[in-house]
Amino acid sequence: MSCDELPLIPMPLRVVGHVRCALPDDEVGRARRHLVSTIDVLPACAEGLVGIEAYSQIIVLFWMDRAPRDPALLIHPRGDDTLPLTGAFAARGRARPNPIGLAVVDLLARDGNALTVRRLDAWNGTPVIDLKPYDHYDVHPDPRVPAWLRARVER
Amino acid sequence: MSCDELPLIPMPLRVVGHVRCALPDDEVGRARRHLVSTIDVLPACAEGLVGIEAYSQIIVLFWMDRAPRDPALLIHPRGDDTLPLTGAFAARGRARPNPIGLAVVDLLARDGNALTVRRLDAWNGTPVIDLKPYDHYDVHPDPRVPAWLRARVER
Repeated sequence: MSCDELPLIPMPLRVVGHVRCALPDDEVGRARRHLVSTIDVLPACAEGLVGIEAYSQIIVLFWMDRAPRDPALLIHPRGDDTLPLTGAFAARGRARPNPIGLAVVDLLARDGNALTVRRLDAWNGTPVIDLKPYDHYDVHPDPRVPAWLRARVER
Repeated sequence: MSCDELPLIPMPLRVVGHVRCALPDDEVGRARRHLVSTIDVLPACAEGLVGIEAYSQIIVLFWMDRAPRDPALLIHPRGDDTLPLTGAFAARGRARPNPIGLAVVDLLARDGNALTVRRLDAWNGTPVIDLKPYDHYDVHPDPRVPAWLRARVER
């Protein structure tokens, strides 16, 4: 089943900035752990950044504009068919009803409207739709995850 | 400045479920820490849940349908004017360019399309737009936050 018949919220999203990343799209995922990118916030939104540098991490929500439009709801994570068929809501990939990506990133620096961040797995030019500060409510030190994912983390 | 002149993404969001919560709206924030709610995922999306029960926490993205439409970009967090004026991107409140709420919640149980969760600060009836599993990439054990927020966490 796909998700192309779901009810819609009629209000379009506002673009608040864009991702600037020197890597080609297909290298971003693999390089993520040490990848440093820039988020250029639109000048019209600059006031929204006041105080953000007090945080060591922020959550970036971005619009995956090159994701499939009506994806299947059951997928193999990471396109790896040795991994179990998994629902879109139990995976972090690009195939999901709303192509909203989420990354918790290290906020390394702010220079005016430009934020330098580490660990953002978004492609060059991706529209950013929200930034949120990461705080203690977001910390769950040892989350339970599926066996296949734990094996990869421990490798 | 407000954010009502920002460029838009023309594609509307899909509703994938709704929050069910027994508390009145104005009590949800305060009660958050121990609050247990239900997320009713639409039957058309049920396949998307396959495998989600392997995770102890999930990230819920929801559409804050009762949030202000064109909010100011500088606000006092929590409406408390003893706290410094802060940009919308440096705060977790409802006043933001796109009224998308985000909560990391404990996944307590799944019964078909209904997920029982703890710590979801979304009001009864709120449309849900995405669910994502929480994993080790999302854990930053001791985040730096502003002094006023740290003081509240330690209280």
